[in-house]
Amino acid sequence: MFDSKEFIEKSIKEIRKTVGENKVISACSGGVDSTVATVLVHKALGKNAVAVFIDDGLRREGEPEFVVKTLTNIGIRNRFVDAKKEFFEVFKGKVDAEEKRKAFRDKFYKKFGEVSKEEKIGFITQGTIKADIMETVGGIKSQHNVLEQIGINPESYGYKILEPLKELFKPEVRKVARELGLPKEISERMPFPGPALSLRVLGEVTAEKIAIVRKATQIVEEETKELGVFQAFAVLHNDKATGIKKGKRVYGNIVTIRIVDSQDAVTARASQVNYEILKCICSRITTEIATVVRCLYDITDKPPATIEFE
Amino acid sequence: MFDSKEFIEKSIKEIRKTVGENKVISACSGGVDSTVATVLVHKALGKNAVAVFIDDGLRREGEPEFVVKTLTNIGIRNRFVDAKKEFFEVFKGKVDAEEKRKAFRDKFYKKFGEVSKEEKIGFITQGTIKADIMETVGGIKSQHNVLEQIGINPESYGYKILEPLKELFKPEVRKVARELGLPKEISERMPFPGPALSLRVLGEVTAEKIAIVRKATQIVEEETKELGVFQAFAVLHNDKATGIKKGKRVYGNIVTIRIVDSQDAVTARASQVNYEILKCICSRITTEIATVVRCLYDITDKPPATIEFE
Repeated sequence: MFDSKEFIEKSIKEIRKTVGENKVISACSGGVDSTVATVLVHKALGKNAVAVFIDDGLRREGEPEFVVKTLTNIGIRNRFVDAKKEFFEVFKGKVDAEEKRKAFRDKFYKKFGEVSKEEKIGFITQGTIKADIMETVGGIKSQHNVLEQIGINPESYGYKILEPLKELFKPEVRKVARELGLPKEISERMPFPGPALSLRVLGEVTAEKIAIVRKATQIVEEETKELGVFQAFAVLHNDKATGIKKGKRVYGNIVTIRIVDSQDAVTARASQVNYEILKCICSRITTEIATVVRCLYDITDKPPATIEFE
Repeated sequence: MFDSKEFIEKSIKEIRKTVGENKVISACSGGVDSTVATVLVHKALGKNAVAVFIDDGLRREGEPEFVVKTLTNIGIRNRFVDAKKEFFEVFKGKVDAEEKRKAFRDKFYKKFGEVSKEEKIGFITQGTIKADIMETVGGIKSQHNVLEQIGINPESYGYKILEPLKELFKPEVRKVARELGLPKEISERMPFPGPALSLRVLGEVTAEKIAIVRKATQIVEEETKELGVFQAFAVLHNDKATGIKKGKRVYGNIVTIRIVDSQDAVTARASQVNYEILKCICSRITTEIATVVRCLYDITDKPPATIEFE
């Protein structure tokens, strides 16, 4: 049986031992993993820890503000970096999923490298958990925060990596979050991928497409928040399809709704959501987003699908 | 109240009056519309009518053989034209839905023009129904068999068009089919678009992609044949997504399952199909078709979507 109190004590000691007198930056996205990692480092090192939120332009509605407010409330020193334009720049012309992930990862680490130099830090903390490492080593995906596992030397970016949660699975991370007294919005927060909405826009990522999938994501989350599912989100296709808006034929966007039940993201089941809820989501998306003519529901388990589309 | 017996008598008289001593080719795809039109012309003109089946390579599994056998059983003189290679040739490099429709239509009429010259005929019969005309005039889609309505002069292709069903809606056509004593496989046959599977492959149409969507279509039809739905089919996306096959990450195909309830195809509802049936279809498609990692279910009514994707 996992003892979250014991884990926290042990983790704090280990962080102190590893880091010594160095300063540490914590990359906090607002998700449960990275926030728990950030709080652990803060508890271990106090003012030697600074949390950084990089706004890559790919976040959910209101998320950047929420993360900064949360960190401030806990008393963690934090920096907000607006890098929206730079991220959209690196996505230009890239349509392949793996190319997009690599472009994101590279930009993400370069940006952190810049901040880490300014702060004169020696370590960067990330919320990598066990499932991320298993899947990266197994070749399922190249997770953006498991550089060491895939043979990239993080020192070439100017710092060492600290991953205090890499032995934990998601339910254990949530237990630690509760034990740390984090608000429910964090401890029970739905998983959200590192490269965020960029994985939920098939094909080239642009600011316009991100705006569409952000709005669709908001609708899906609003309509499913009572369901207690593991993850619920929207994906914008690159393919288009015919539809009818205001009596006229249009060639419009396709959005897929993805809702899954899972314990640890290693396997997952497509949720059997009440059909009326799905119809309501479909109706809202095709009404509130002018360009969308069609909503699809992903009925595939993992495996053979993955939870995310890229 | 529509009287199918009266319609048949009136229609036969009109066909005789319009056609006179000319010979007529009937374009028969095996669907209820074109088969009813073919039988009416056969009844009106006897040996002056010949049915032609053009195999465009875009038909369902076993369909070409089925159509020829059906026509022969009824005693209708028929010709089978293998044009598979020519059709795949015209699709090369075309990704836009309307361009694909136009390419298909042009090839279709040219092919018929060739046969009509060989047969020295003056008229070509098509199974155009009222919904096709309404939607073409309304700008919903450019139906391949309503040339006159969209301003194309069919005489430039070498013949005149005969459309004996253009005042009927689908349920009336089915009544006429029953009155004519056609087998149930025809009278209750699911609608299938003129350009066939080419509309169900998003992006460029190739023989390989048609093979995938043909297999997926067969699975959907097998698993839904007891449901009595208006239409049930599969669509192959051009977009790809990540999945896991044999424990390895793959970047695979996405198939959408589309099942709708409708009276006349002018409006339609996405069917609320039993979830176990959908899961079974998904499991079969991702197992029996090696490249497919994900199945989506289209939950959008018409409007705002259309029944087909293109």
